[in-house]
Amino acid sequence: MDPQRLAHAIRFLAIDAIVRAGEGHQGVPLGMAEIATALYTQHLKFDAAAPTWWDRDRVVLSNGHGSMLLYALLHLTGHERILLDQIKTFRVLGSHCAGHPEIDPAAGIEVTTGPLGQGIANALGMAVAEAHLNARFGDALVDHRTYAFVGDGCLQEGVGQEAIALAGHLRLGKLTFLWDDNRITDDGSTSLSISEDVAERFRVAGWHVQALDGHDVDAVSAALDAARADPRPSLLACRTVIARGIARLQGQRGGHSARLFEADAAAAREALDWPHAPFETPAPVLDAWRAAGRRSRSAHDAWQARVAALPAAQRAEFERVMRGELPAGWQDVLRAHQQRAAADGPKGGINPPPQGGINLSSDIHDALTDVLPERLVLCADLEAPTAHKRRLHAFTADDRSGAYLHCGVREHVMAAMANGMSAHGGLRPAAVTYLAFADYERPAMRMAALMGLPVTFIFSHDSIGIGSNGPTHQPVEVLASLRAMPNLLVMRPADATEAAECWQLALEHSSGPVCLVFARQALPRVRSDDGSAENRCRRGAYVLAEADGGRRRVTLLATGSEVLIAVQARHALQAEGVATAVVSMPCWELFDEQDVSYRHAVLGPGTARVAVEAALRFGWDCYLGERGAFIGMRGFGASGPADALYRHFGITADAVVSAARELLMNHPIR
Amino acid sequence: MDPQRLAHAIRFLAIDAIVRAGEGHQGVPLGMAEIATALYTQHLKFDAAAPTWWDRDRVVLSNGHGSMLLYALLHLTGHERILLDQIKTFRVLGSHCAGHPEIDPAAGIEVTTGPLGQGIANALGMAVAEAHLNARFGDALVDHRTYAFVGDGCLQEGVGQEAIALAGHLRLGKLTFLWDDNRITDDGSTSLSISEDVAERFRVAGWHVQALDGHDVDAVSAALDAARADPRPSLLACRTVIARGIARLQGQRGGHSARLFEADAAAAREALDWPHAPFETPAPVLDAWRAAGRRSRSAHDAWQARVAALPAAQRAEFERVMRGELPAGWQDVLRAHQQRAAADGPKGGINPPPQGGINLSSDIHDALTDVLPERLVLCADLEAPTAHKRRLHAFTADDRSGAYLHCGVREHVMAAMANGMSAHGGLRPAAVTYLAFADYERPAMRMAALMGLPVTFIFSHDSIGIGSNGPTHQPVEVLASLRAMPNLLVMRPADATEAAECWQLALEHSSGPVCLVFARQALPRVRSDDGSAENRCRRGAYVLAEADGGRRRVTLLATGSEVLIAVQARHALQAEGVATAVVSMPCWELFDEQDVSYRHAVLGPGTARVAVEAALRFGWDCYLGERGAFIGMRGFGASGPADALYRHFGITADAVVSAARELLMNHPIR
Repeated sequence: MDPQRLAHAIRFLAIDAIVRAGEGHQGVPLGMAEIATALYTQHLKFDAAAPTWWDRDRVVLSNGHGSMLLYALLHLTGHERILLDQIKTFRVLGSHCAGHPEIDPAAGIEVTTGPLGQGIANALGMAVAEAHLNARFGDALVDHRTYAFVGDGCLQEGVGQEAIALAGHLRLGKLTFLWDDNRITDDGSTSLSISEDVAERFRVAGWHVQALDGHDVDAVSAALDAARADPRPSLLACRTVIARGIARLQGQRGGHSARLFEADAAAAREALDWPHAPFETPAPVLDAWRAAGRRSRSAHDAWQARVAALPAAQRAEFERVMRGELPAGWQDVLRAHQQRAAADGPKGGINPPPQGGINLSSDIHDALTDVLPERLVLCADLEAPTAHKRRLHAFTADDRSGAYLHCGVREHVMAAMANGMSAHGGLRPAAVTYLAFADYERPAMRMAALMGLPVTFIFSHDSIGIGSNGPTHQPVEVLASLRAMPNLLVMRPADATEAAECWQLALEHSSGPVCLVFARQALPRVRSDDGSAENRCRRGAYVLAEADGGRRRVTLLATGSEVLIAVQARHALQAEGVATAVVSMPCWELFDEQDVSYRHAVLGPGTARVAVEAALRFGWDCYLGERGAFIGMRGFGASGPADALYRHFGITADAVVSAARELLMNHPIR
Repeated sequence: MDPQRLAHAIRFLAIDAIVRAGEGHQGVPLGMAEIATALYTQHLKFDAAAPTWWDRDRVVLSNGHGSMLLYALLHLTGHERILLDQIKTFRVLGSHCAGHPEIDPAAGIEVTTGPLGQGIANALGMAVAEAHLNARFGDALVDHRTYAFVGDGCLQEGVGQEAIALAGHLRLGKLTFLWDDNRITDDGSTSLSISEDVAERFRVAGWHVQALDGHDVDAVSAALDAARADPRPSLLACRTVIARGIARLQGQRGGHSARLFEADAAAAREALDWPHAPFETPAPVLDAWRAAGRRSRSAHDAWQARVAALPAAQRAEFERVMRGELPAGWQDVLRAHQQRAAADGPKGGINPPPQGGINLSSDIHDALTDVLPERLVLCADLEAPTAHKRRLHAFTADDRSGAYLHCGVREHVMAAMANGMSAHGGLRPAAVTYLAFADYERPAMRMAALMGLPVTFIFSHDSIGIGSNGPTHQPVEVLASLRAMPNLLVMRPADATEAAECWQLALEHSSGPVCLVFARQALPRVRSDDGSAENRCRRGAYVLAEADGGRRRVTLLATGSEVLIAVQARHALQAEGVATAVVSMPCWELFDEQDVSYRHAVLGPGTARVAVEAALRFGWDCYLGERGAFIGMRGFGASGPADALYRHFGITADAVVSAARELLMNHPIR
C-alpha cells in the first residue's frame, strides 16, 4: 500500500469531520498526516484491540487542537471507541471526538491536551515513568517508547522549554518529539515571534536532532529508526506545509483553523486523487490501517506470556502497581507510624516539636517508603526546606532506580511531568514545593483536576508563618484559588494526627489530585488521639472540641496552623463561661459532600461563628453565614519574623475571642 | 580606590546584616559584589539623589533573595531611603530592607522580586518600554539601558526561557543580564538539574555572550563596554564563587543561605583584611561609593536642561506620559464612542450584534488610540480572536514605534513584561489572551497586584460560551481564582455600555492591575443608556432593573454574558407578578468598598436571591446569604456548541426562574 494513500486517509477524515463540524483545526492533521502514518504503521508498539496494554508505546498529541489527527489514527487503526459515528460527530456534545482530546486510555487517548506545552511535559513524565519502571521490573515487562506530536506553540511556552532542558539533562533516550515545523502559528509566520534555530536549541540541551521532510513517509520512518538507535532524546524536526491539501489555505496563516467548506474538500479530493465519498475510506486503505492496528499483536501476546510466566508474587506485585492499587498492609504501616508519633510527640499544644510542619508530611512519606515502592517525589530545587527526600535517592541519567527527581527551578514542568507519570500508570507521583509557587504549577494542576489524575501536590511554607522572606513568598490567596478549582481536594492538616489522616485520604483518593498543604513553622499537637481508631478528616471537617457546659454558643472554625489559635481562643472563652466549640476543617471539598445534618451539627448555625485562617476570607462565607466573623489576612503579607507578623496582622487567639464576644453582643444567640 | 575594597564594602554590609537578622541569602551579595561594583561605579547611569530620574538606567535584581546586594549598593551610593539603620534592620518588620526587594523607585528599588524568573522578564519589558519611548521621544529624552542580576534559577524557569527567546528575537541591544554563574542552587550543584551550556543557549537565541571571571572588576567592566557596543542583548556569564569570603561555605551548597554566625564574619574580616567594625564602611571607601552615586549627575543636569528647552507642548506631553497621567479630553473620546455605539447598536437584548463580546473592548481601545499614544498591547499569539491590534502596528527589532507586541505562545513572559513596562513608566501596557490561559500568566499577575502596578489584563473567551474547543479552554474557575487575589480588580462587563464604563475605570485606576473579562460570544445590550451620564459600574454592582409592582421579592445577581439571562428571567417572573430586580455586578472588589446601606439596597437581603454566572459558585455566598441559590457550573465544561452547553449545564433563564420560585416557596419572604 502506497503510504501516501494511508496518509490521505487521515487527511480526508479530518477534512470531512471539520467541514461537517463547521470548525476545527485542520493545520495539524493535514500537515502531520505523513509523519503520523510513518509512526503508526511502521514503528509504534500498540494493539488497537487492547489500547491499555501496559507496555504499549505512549503517544501524546501535545498540539491538542489538531485532535482530528489523533481521532483519524485511532479510528483507522481500529480502536473500538472511535468508530466512524464518533468521527462524524466531531465537536458535538457527547462525542468521543471532542474539540481537544480528552483522556480515555481505552479509546487510545493517553492524556487531555490543549493548553500548549502541557503535552510534551506529560510525555517527559511518561518517559521518566517508563525508565523507572524498566529499572524496577526489567525489559521483559516494561520497555516502551514515548512519542509526542509537537507544534511551534508547545516549544515557545516556558513549560515546553523546561521540558526540553530537563529531558536532555535526564538523557531520556526513549522520548521522541515529532515537531510539525510548519513555520505558522495563529498570528501568522513564526518569524513574528521567534528567530532562534529551534533545532539548535534542542542540540544545546543534549538532544539528538534530525531535520527532514515531514511529508516524506520514508524519511520520517528512517529518522524514527535513528532515534531509536540514539541514547539521547530525539527531535524529528519535520519540515511541513500547514493544512497541506487545501489549496486555498496550505502554507498560510489561515491553514491553522480558518473555516473549511465543502468546496475546499471537493477541490482537495480532485487535487489529491481521492475520489471517495465523505467519510469513506476505501477498503484496501482501511485494511492496511487495520493491519497496522494489529502489527504489535504478537509482541503483545509474547508480553502476556512473559507476565503469565512470572513467579506468582512478582506477577501480583507488577499487576498491583500497574493497576494503581494500594498494597496490603499499607494502613498498618501508617497506623504504626501514627501511634509512634503520638507516643513520642509533645502534647496539648504547649511544647511545639522542634521541626517544621512540613516534616510531619515527610515523616509519613518516609514511613511508607518500603511498603509503597511506587511513590516518586518530584521537587523544584527545594530539597532541604521541603524535606521529602529522606531515604530516597535521585533519579538520574545514570540511575533510573531513583525515586526522587531534582527538577531544578522548574515548577511548571514538575507538575506536568507528575501528570504524565500518573497517566502512564505504575507510579504515585508527588510534586513538592512552597505554596507560594503553586501558581507556577497551576496550569498543570488544572489539567490534573480535569483529567482526574491522582497526583499528590505537596506544599510547605503555607502562610505568613514563613516569616521574613516576605510577601512574595507568603501565599495569602493561594488556598482560596486552589479551593476554587473543581475536582481538587485541598487539605491543610493541623497537626501530626491530621497529617497522617490526610495522607491516608490522599493515597486512597483515585479520581483526582490532592493538595497537602503544610506550614513551615511547627504544628504542635491539637489532637490527643492518634487517629487510628477513626479517620476524622475523612468528613472534611469535624468538631475537634465540643462546647462545654451548656448549649454551644460559639463555633470557631479553623484549618492548619490556626487550629491551635482556635483551641487557645476556646480556652479563654470557656473560662468566661462561653460554651465554645472548635471545628477543624482540613478539607472543605470533603466536608461539602456530607449530608446537611452533619454539616449543621458541625457548623452550628445559630451560634456565633468565627473562622480563623492565616489567609484571605475569600470562600469562607458559605461556612460563616451572614453574621459570621473572620480573623485572617486582608491583603498581602510583609517581611518580618513569623510571630511579629501574626501579631501585626491580628491573627491571634485574642482577636478570635474579641470577634466572638462582639458577635454575641450584637446578635444574641437564639 | 582599589575596586576590591569597594566590593568588600558590599560584602561586609551583607554579612553583618545577615548575621544580625539571623537569616538571609549571602550567596548572591558575596558572589556578585565585584560584578555590582563594576556596574555601579563605572557604568550605570543613575543619580542617587534623584532615584526616579526618568532616563536612568534600570537595574533589576532578578535573584531577589540576594536582596542585601541591592540594599548595600543603594546605601553605599547614597540613596537616602536606605540609610544604615535600614541595613541594620534587614528583615525586621517595617524596614525598607525586607527579605526580598519591595518596589520603591524612590529608594532605588525598581521592582519587587523573589519568585524566580519574574525579574528578568520585567527587565525585558523595561527594555521594550525604553526602545518604544526612545522611538517616540528621541535620544535626547530617552536613552538608557536595562541591567538584570540573574541567578541559575531565573534561567531554569520557563518564564526566564521565554524571556531569553523573546529578547533575542526583538534584538533589545540595551538589555544586559549579569549572570551569577556559581554552579550552585538550593539543592546543591547545578549538575543535579541542568546539563546544557547556558551561554550557548543564549547564543542560539541571538544574544551577545561573553564569559568572564565575575570576581575581576576590570573584566566585568570591559565586558559591559563590549555589551554596550553590540546591537544584540548581552549576557555576561560571570563565573563566580557563591558566598565568596565565607571560608566555611564559599563555593558550596550551604553558601546559598546556610546561617551565618559572628565567627564567620570575624573570619572573613581576617581573611579579607577588613579590620572594621560591623556595619562600618571606612570613610575613603564610602566616599568613593558616594562619588559613584553622583557620577551621572552632570548627565542628569544635561538631560534636565534638554527637557527644559523643549517646546512647551512637547515637554508637557513627555511629562504627562512619564507621570502616567491621562490626557485632557480622553473622556470625551470615550463618551463619543459610547454614544456612537449606543446609537448604532441593536437594543433590548433581541438582536445580538454579529461580533463577539471581546470586540466591544477592542472597539473602545481602538477609539482611544489617537488620544492615548502610551498604550501598548501585548498578545500571546491570538491576534485575530482577541481583536486588539486594529490600527496598531507591531513592535519589532526593526521598528520600535509599534505598539503591538507579538509575544508568541508565551503568556507568562507577556504578563511579566507588562509589569516591567508599567514599572518603567511612560506606557500603559495591556496583555491580552483567553481567560483559560490566565493561569499561565498568574505568577506575574500576582506580582502586578503585589506591586500595585496598573497593568490591564484583557481576557476573551471567558466561559463555556466558547463552545466546542471544550473544557481545556473553558475557564469555569478562573474568575473565582482572580477574585481571590488581593489588589486586583476583576471586571466582567455585560454589554457595550458596561464595557466602556469598565474601560474608563481601568484607565483611571492607578494603584493596581485590572482584569477586563469578555465573552467570545456576542453581548447584546442590556443597558438602554450609553453610560455617559453616570458610570454605574463605578460602584461595582448596581440595580440594572428594579422590581416592578410592589416590594422587591426576588433579586437576581449576574455578571457579563449572564446578565441577559437574568434580564430574561426577570421578565418571566414579573409576568407572573413576582416583583424582581436584576443586579449587574461587573466588579466585586469595587462593590465590596461601598458602604453597607448601598450594598444592602443593591443586594436586597430578605429577598429571594439567585445568582447566575457561567462559572463556579465559589465566592458568591457572601452576596447570596444563607438561603440564596446559584445557577452556574458545578465542575468543568464540555465540548459542544455554546447554546447546547448552556442548556446542558442548566444555565438558562428557566433555571433562574425555577430557583427563584423554589426559594419563594420554601422561604416565604418576610
